[in-house]
Formats: sequence, C-alpha cells, structure tokens
Amino acid sequence: MGTLREDADQIIARAIQKVLPDKAVAQALEQKQFDSGSIYVVAAGKAAWQMAQAASAILGERITRGVVITKYEHVKGEIAGMDCYEAGHPVPDENSFAATQAALDLMKGLSLHDTVLFLLSGGGSALFEKPLVPGEELADVTKQLLACGADIVEINTIRKRLSAVKGGKFAKLCEPAQIYSIVLSDILGDPLDMIASGPAYPDTSSCEDARSIVRKYNLKLSSKALACLQIETPKELSNVQTQITGSVKNLCRAAAQECQALGYEPVILTDQLECEAKEAGSFLASIAKTHAMLRKKLAFVAGGETVVHLTGSGKGGRNQELALAAAAGIAGLTGTAAFSVGSDGTDGPTDAAGGYCDWQTKQSLMEQGIDIFETLKQNDAYYALQKCGGLIVTGATGTNVNDVAVLLINGES
Amino acid sequence: MGTLREDADQIIARAIQKVLPDKAVAQALEQKQFDSGSIYVVAAGKAAWQMAQAASAILGERITRGVVITKYEHVKGEIAGMDCYEAGHPVPDENSFAATQAALDLMKGLSLHDTVLFLLSGGGSALFEKPLVPGEELADVTKQLLACGADIVEINTIRKRLSAVKGGKFAKLCEPAQIYSIVLSDILGDPLDMIASGPAYPDTSSCEDARSIVRKYNLKLSSKALACLQIETPKELSNVQTQITGSVKNLCRAAAQECQALGYEPVILTDQLECEAKEAGSFLASIAKTHAMLRKKLAFVAGGETVVHLTGSGKGGRNQELALAAAAGIAGLTGTAAFSVGSDGTDGPTDAAGGYCDWQTKQSLMEQGIDIFETLKQNDAYYALQKCGGLIVTGATGTNVNDVAVLLINGES
Repeated sequence: MGTLREDADQIIARAIQKVLPDKAVAQALEQKQFDSGSIYVVAAGKAAWQMAQAASAILGERITRGVVITKYEHVKGEIAGMDCYEAGHPVPDENSFAATQAALDLMKGLSLHDTVLFLLSGGGSALFEKPLVPGEELADVTKQLLACGADIVEINTIRKRLSAVKGGKFAKLCEPAQIYSIVLSDILGDPLDMIASGPAYPDTSSCEDARSIVRKYNLKLSSKALACLQIETPKELSNVQTQITGSVKNLCRAAAQECQALGYEPVILTDQLECEAKEAGSFLASIAKTHAMLRKKLAFVAGGETVVHLTGSGKGGRNQELALAAAAGIAGLTGTAAFSVGSDGTDGPTDAAGGYCDWQTKQSLMEQGIDIFETLKQNDAYYALQKCGGLIVTGATGTNVNDVAVLLINGES
Repeated sequence: MGTLREDADQIIARAIQKVLPDKAVAQALEQKQFDSGSIYVVAAGKAAWQMAQAASAILGERITRGVVITKYEHVKGEIAGMDCYEAGHPVPDENSFAATQAALDLMKGLSLHDTVLFLLSGGGSALFEKPLVPGEELADVTKQLLACGADIVEINTIRKRLSAVKGGKFAKLCEPAQIYSIVLSDILGDPLDMIASGPAYPDTSSCEDARSIVRKYNLKLSSKALACLQIETPKELSNVQTQITGSVKNLCRAAAQECQALGYEPVILTDQLECEAKEAGSFLASIAKTHAMLRKKLAFVAGGETVVHLTGSGKGGRNQELALAAAAGIAGLTGTAAFSVGSDGTDGPTDAAGGYCDWQTKQSLMEQGIDIFETLKQNDAYYALQKCGGLIVTGATGTNVNDVAVLLINGES
C-alpha cells in the first residue's frame, strides 16, 4: 500500500491520462462504425493537432483529407493527408478565417456515405470562424456586448447569427454527409451549443431572442448585421452524432475509478464545482472531519473550476489555494489528505499543476513559521507548498478539461 | 407529496425539535439507570433552565435538590427543589461566582451512591466558574491571551488552571458521587474538554503546556496565578458518564432522518462545516448540478457554523447568505432547493432563522430587479429573500446547536 502522496500522484497521473486528447479520440473512435464513403477530418481548437494526429494514427489511410486549425505554436509537425493551420486566439484573425474557409472548401460536394470527423476542443470559437459581417464589425459587436455586461448565452446568441459556421450551421454545410463530432470540453456541464458556439449542434436560441438582446442593450449594428439576425439557425440536425470523451466529467470519473483501484470508496460530489478555491478546500476539510473517524477508506471527488479573488500579490493558483486551505481543516486528522490539480498541468502563473496537503502539513508549515491563513491572504500558496513538498508538478499535459480536487481518507484515524 | 418548501419546513421543524434542551435531556435520561442514593442537579449554561425543568418533569421527587445557573433574563419560572440563579455572560461576574459556590456547597459530603446530574450547555464557561485568583486578574489574563493571538486551546489551557471547577476539577469535587453529564453542545466536533472548559471531563493539557504558553506570549501573571499553573489537572475521571444528546451532529442526523421519512435518500456531507457562508451555498449548488439529473430524490446535509465576511452594510445572516448563494447555482435545475437555518431561530441580526431558495428563486428575483451577486456583496440577503418568500421564521427555539443546511433534489429534473 502506498503513502497518501503516492496514491495522490497515481490518481492524478491516471486521471489526466484518460482525458488526453489522443485518449479522448481513441475512446470515441472505438465505438464508431464508419459508413462506406470517404472520411474527412476537421479539427479546431487548442488540442486540434493532438486530436487530429490521434485520428490519423488510428484511421490511417481511411482518412481522405483533413484540415487542422489551432493556436499559434501549437502545430507540432506534419500529419499525413492533413493541412495544419495556426491562427488567432482568443481573438480570431485573418488566418482563422482563411483556415476555416479551407475546411469549408473540403466539405463541398460530399455524399451521403461520407463522414466528416469533427474534432473540437477549447478555443474553437475563435479558431473556427467565418463571419457574415466584416471582421472589424464582429470584433466591435463583441466589444459592445462585453461592455454592457451581457452574459455568455446572450453573447453567443448574437455571434451565432453573425457567423456562417456557428450555431449548427457548419453541420448544415456538410450535408448530406454524416458528421461524427468528438468533443474535448473545457466548459462545465458540457453545453454542446456553447463549446465553440456549437458548429455542429442544434441551436436553442431564436431570432426573437437575438432581437430582444439588441433592444435590451441598445446595440449598434450595421444593416447587414441586422439582416443576419433575421435568419433562423438550425433547430434540428439529422446528420450529427456527438461524443464528449474528454471533459471534467471524464476527469472526475477517471479519478474516482483510480481511487477505487487503490481501495478507496469514491464519492463524486460534483463535476461542476464553482466557488472560491480556498472555501472549496475548507468545505472538503469539513467533510473530512465528519468522515475521518469511520475507519473506512474514502475518497471525495470534486471537479470543476474554482476562482480566486486576489487579496495579495503572492504566487499561486486556484488548485494550490484549495489544497492549502484544506490543510488547515484536516490538520491532525490522521490519514487524511487533499489535493487539487489542473488537467492542463498549469495552475495559475506557476510551473505547478496544483497542490497536495495532508494532516501533517499545517504542523510542518508552523514549524517553518508559515501561517496558512496569512499565506492565503497574500495569495502566496506556491512557496508555502514548496516548503512542505506539496507542489504537484506534471508539466504541460496537452489537455484542458478543468480541474479535479480529491479528499482522501485512508481510514487509519 | 408536499412541495419542496413544505418538505423544507417539515425537515426544519422536526430537526430542531429533536435538539431542544428538553428533548436532549429526555433522551439522555431514557438510557440512564440511577444508583440508589440521592440525585442532585447542577445545570449551567444558556439552556440550563430548560434542561433543569425537563429533568424535574421526568425525575420529579427523585431529585433531592438542584442549582441552576443561566444568563440574565433566562430563568422562566420556579422549579421545585431547585435554586435558579442568573449571572454574567460572556464575562463572568460576582453572581457567576456566587451561584457556582452554591452548587459546590451542595456537592459537599455526597456518598458513593449519590448522583450529580450535570446539565451543561453553551455559555457554561462564564456562568460556571470559581476562580483561584481574583476575578480582576482572571479577566486581565484572558485579555492578555486574546491580545497576543493565543488560540482557544491555549486560552483554555491557562484558564483551566486558574479555576477551581474547570478542566475536570468539578468532577473531583463531587467524589465519591457519580456524575451523569448531559451536554448540549454548541462547539463543532463536540470537544468535551472545551465545552465550558470541561468541568467534568479529563483534561488533556499539562502544566508544561501551560508554562510554555506563558513563555511563548510573555504573559504577566501574579505569583498566585503562577503557583496555580504548577498544579496538575485530573487526567482520568472514574466517576463521570457523559451523554451529548443535543449537538449539531444530532441536528444533522435528525434532518437526515426527516429527509428519509419524506422519501429523500440522505447524505450527511459534514456536521462540522466551516467556511464562508455564500461559498458553502455555491458548493451545495455545484453538487446539485451533478446530481439533479439522476431522477432520484436526494438530500445532502451539511451542518456546522459558516462565517460571513462583511463587504456591505445590508441586513442578513449566514444562513440567509448560504441559501441565496445556492439560488444562483441551482437556477433552472427543476426540482432542486437549498435551505439553511440556525437552530436557535436567529440568523444574524434579523428576525429570521434562515433562508430557503429553489430553482425558481433567481428568476423571481430577476423579475423584481434583484441581482443575487450584488445582494450578497451588500450582505443584504434578508430583503431579497423576503421578496421571494424565502425567509424561514421560527422564532426563538430555546436551543443553540449551530446550523444545518440541506440541498433537496426531488428527482423531477
């Protein structure tokens, strides 16, 4: 049996491995029987290159041709039969539009038996775009919407209508071909019409919604843009099948599975965690206090995306803060540990992926003159964790499906 | 089947009922076989009168005599065979000392077959006290300890030694009689040596601990006080039996039982919740997001004592903030509700005991022009909850075992 830290490292490694872009693609392709026609690949997003390469490795020459669109410096080499483009993110640029046009050109004249393998990951909204108004107006409208405090649903309701590919329109352009969409989701709850504004997913918003947003915020739009708002988006798509195989939900499930493999009884509390990072740590520690005495091996899993409200100018990240805050609560609770990690391997502006603390961490920090509450107030978790061996360092992982935090109780209390 | 609000009200009413002082006493007495000798009652704390009256109602003339010590205006009438005293709280005064002496006088010359029924509730630390140094020095030492940032364990380590009754010494003074101690706990985790500084519980701190605290904070003590620190407190007590029948643990269990009676599968997350109130609400809402779609009736229970860091000057309380924050997260999740309530019936400086919100609350508030985040920033939950029927009003309950929050999911999402 490993130590709590060894268990934590193993859970982290295995959980992240299962949500890597190539694993997500491999898992989704395992279940897929392709029709007799050609297979075309369109990959867009920050993980587009990895996803496309995985598809190429599995399907090989079954793929007729492909277009890959990712962020600058994210193309890691040639992929046989595919054209790889780098483009602007988070703001789309001319390269985004040109690359998207190249993908659309590939979709022309497809047959009913052809399949478009659509590989979508975070960042796809900027990278996969063909605006129906000039790029400058698109940027201006987005700016107006942000300035007036419109929420993301409202922003997307407008943007879907000013785009030739968003809001399900890409799927329409692929008709009569089938689309098999594999999604690596970086949005909690995996709302498919929101990820990259849903190029291959039916739109739930209406023209009337769009018009009332224009009225509500008194948006200034050109007559061309106003005309776009009159055109309804697809409400049903019969040619699309979607698989989300990489998301924080999968990350949580994978973490829970690994906990189970190590003998812990896992409980997934949430895969949509949204709250202040350090308070989530305190909440997990509160759970530990009640369950640590049960002499059972338990693991409580909470995945999602916490936030940090800065009150200091130290170095740290949301996962590190969560773990350090938990350390205060689990202090002295023999056999308990809490850790939190970002699946992309980067937590805040640090080289760590997250933090690990256990029942002895507070004591160890006290002996070094470090107070947990003061450290959190300074947002300085990094150095404190460094001093007690609590940094989790994975390096860049190549995936991005948010974070997972785990409370481990080994039942020895 | 009731509405979510009706379920909430029933859970709250039944849970609080089970931790009322009289229920706590009745439950503890049910299990007790008294020895053949006399029964003496010593009741101290904010709920002392209610606990003593309950004992009187059950044991009647089996009680030989009793002393009741509670806060000013907390004696609600005469109790046959008992002397009721009112005294200072949270700072002990001469009435505290006189009343405690009256109790100690009663303990003189007891026999092996006599029983002291010791009824302890929150506030007992100030109300039940016989200092070994002048009252002024006791107050001064406490002030010094608070000023230098000593924690509650350190403060109690000193105070136990400056008292003739704390730190297990009361139990020693009752020897050879047996003590049956019934505790209504207002401290999370029910640390028996901390509640009222443990008059009838073995002390875990040592003289050496006390001396190192004096050195650590450079405390100024009289020679008399320093001499007190040299005297060891009881480490074992063979004549004491303790029952905690009223505590937040019982409150949580009772809430879970009532949830189950209403068809919800209950999960007690924690009975030692400590974190920012509104963040606890967000955490519960995050749990709802993951579990609302399972088509199961679920109830997640979290009891404890949250805190509010003021950022505004509105009206509210920690339970109201927790519920209102949850409303933002569960908005639109059909069939979900969250509520939080203080067992004493008073949440912050308001006439409400707590707050209730459900999946429709956010919409209802929006229609009235109320933004949840802005309201929480102003710490103004009371008026917002008032406008959507979300206040929970119970009136003063007569008990005080902290708070319980519940997330209800009726499985209809």
